Amino acid sequence: MAKPSVSASPSSTPLLKDELDIVIPTIRNLDFLEMWRPFFQPYHLIIVQDGDPSKVIKVPEGFAYELYNRNDINKILGPKASCISFKDSACRCFGYMVSKKKYIYTIDDDCFVAKDPTGKEINALEQHIKNLLCPSTPFFFNTLYDPYRDGADFVRGYPFSLREGVPTAVSHGLWLNIPDYDAPTQLVKPLERNTRYVDAVMTIPKGTLFPMCGMNLAFDRELIGPAMYFGLMGDGQPIGRYDDMWAGWCIKVICDHLGLGVKTGLPYIWHSKASNPFVNLKKEYKGIYWQEELIPFFQSVALPKECTSVQKCYLELSKQVKAKLGKVDDYFNKLADAMITWIEAWDELNPSTATAA
Amino acid sequence: MAKPSVSASPSSTPLLKDELDIVIPTIRNLDFLEMWRPFFQPYHLIIVQDGDPSKVIKVPEGFAYELYNRNDINKILGPKASCISFKDSACRCFGYMVSKKKYIYTIDDDCFVAKDPTGKEINALEQHIKNLLCPSTPFFFNTLYDPYRDGADFVRGYPFSLREGVPTAVSHGLWLNIPDYDAPTQLVKPLERNTRYVDAVMTIPKGTLFPMCGMNLAFDRELIGPAMYFGLMGDGQPIGRYDDMWAGWCIKVICDHLGLGVKTGLPYIWHSKASNPFVNLKKEYKGIYWQEELIPFFQSVALPKECTSVQKCYLELSKQVKAKLGKVDDYFNKLADAMITWIEAWDELNPSTATAA
Repeated sequence: MAKPSVSASPSSTPLLKDELDIVIPTIRNLDFLEMWRPFFQPYHLIIVQDGDPSKVIKVPEGFAYELYNRNDINKILGPKASCISFKDSACRCFGYMVSKKKYIYTIDDDCFVAKDPTGKEINALEQHIKNLLCPSTPFFFNTLYDPYRDGADFVRGYPFSLREGVPTAVSHGLWLNIPDYDAPTQLVKPLERNTRYVDAVMTIPKGTLFPMCGMNLAFDRELIGPAMYFGLMGDGQPIGRYDDMWAGWCIKVICDHLGLGVKTGLPYIWHSKASNPFVNLKKEYKGIYWQEELIPFFQSVALPKECTSVQKCYLELSKQVKAKLGKVDDYFNKLADAMITWIEAWDELNPSTATAA
Repeated sequence: MAKPSVSASPSSTPLLKDELDIVIPTIRNLDFLEMWRPFFQPYHLIIVQDGDPSKVIKVPEGFAYELYNRNDINKILGPKASCISFKDSACRCFGYMVSKKKYIYTIDDDCFVAKDPTGKEINALEQHIKNLLCPSTPFFFNTLYDPYRDGADFVRGYPFSLREGVPTAVSHGLWLNIPDYDAPTQLVKPLERNTRYVDAVMTIPKGTLFPMCGMNLAFDRELIGPAMYFGLMGDGQPIGRYDDMWAGWCIKVICDHLGLGVKTGLPYIWHSKASNPFVNLKKEYKGIYWQEELIPFFQSVALPKECTSVQKCYLELSKQVKAKLGKVDDYFNKLADAMITWIEAWDELNPSTATAA
């Protein structure tokens, strides 16, 4: 089996240097970038400033970036800015829309460089890029994990017709130290830390939903960008902390429909501090029970075969959200409308790949 | 979330000492047991002697075992012995049938004790038992792997209604050193060794098939035993090396239907030597192309809701095999008949759990 060749020696040009934007939502100075300098400095940053737009966010010297605050978002999108959340890290998806690059990596500003079990600092971005450039295998499970990795392959019994894999749209990375728990679990286990380094990357099988965390996430904008909408959260909305989950359920059913792959596992980042579980509980509690209806909904979504582009899939999904989740709460009617606005705004900023094109 | 408590201190009674049989198919003296003595000696062994029944198999002293050769199998099963393969390790499934215990662990005689990254010898059986006694989570993917393990849990976005999990029917362990490759991959990569210790156990999601290897496998006989049939392989049959694969596809669709879990990952054993790829190619080549029709078949199997026991599921599956795979090759008509014979033999030896019961 010929393998895709993806390698990067430290001396060579960083992988995809001119084809990837790093999107960071923040409300504070970006001192955390100092630690990432050896890995991020060659890349362009898109900073989405949340909260008070008059506040000045300091970015360490030497980084190339563009920064958008709420005033910028309102100016660029006009009335369509209503689909971008405020006072919630869900605002990061504006950065996906405004980027002109093929790939996006997004990271939270409380995430630091983790170390592998040998003590070596992990270049998370490089691992994400490797994940995105190697195929995925969503149709059959490989027990030795990523079959394209050095030292691994497809095991006995893996159908040969499936060994070419499919293009990878999303790479979901994990977190050492503070795990990504919901408020009830945080409250019950305040001292739990993730210390287990699992040396694996795997494809999430077709038909299986997963909880996608936006803390350490990369994706191919051309393949799945228009579905990476983080919904309506935060200011004026009844929930928070479900932005990345919502996006994850949407992208998964669309990737499954379009034959694209979603990977999870390596790379790890070091998640430095737990958010306040009491505040989180307030943000999450409606999501916690709505979710019990959302999961069966997403598990049963069927997209018609006329949905041949991400935009078409996403608009169809918004219709089904309104039809089936509108009765759970009126919030989902608003969300369904915002999903349409999001696609309109995406197409306006990305005319060459627009729905009509 | 309350967790199932499964622990074993070295000084305590070994887990499930009187509820588990170790099934070993072999054609040679069982010297490999010396290495396993600290872990296996408390348990009862069922040795299924393949090939020439007049040969005497030596078992190291101190092990409690029963041994069945072909003459024994013929005597016990009479004409139904036709469903048990000869000159192929598929004969091991006779051991599953003749056991009276709730749990089975089966291992090949070229598998030795592996070491974890700290150099500690791995008690594979203990890990399998932990896997079997903890629930599985087939309905939604947990990105931090087994949520019941110490130091892990369900991550944010995992539906609370699914956190109790379902009973685990099968625990599929992995292999360090010689990976379980098919003949073409063996031929292309004769020197590849698996050196990567992935510290994870995971549930294979509902609706996803996997290549189940019989080398290092444990299961709950009461939950899934009658579906653990390793088919017709070896002497007089057109294929080999698909015995465990066949069983894996059958048990997976039945576990999915009955709401039971299948896990893969830890524990590792040390697989000492690669089998001959030229011999393997001869055994496998029909399987390699038949498989391209088998996988779509198993992916589309639907069991009616009247199938409420493993036996009923398995008999229904045999009907569908005959109806849909009989045209691929007459071999599948024979196999479908053997599947029925297997259930009849199983029920005869296990009357209290028989189909009619």
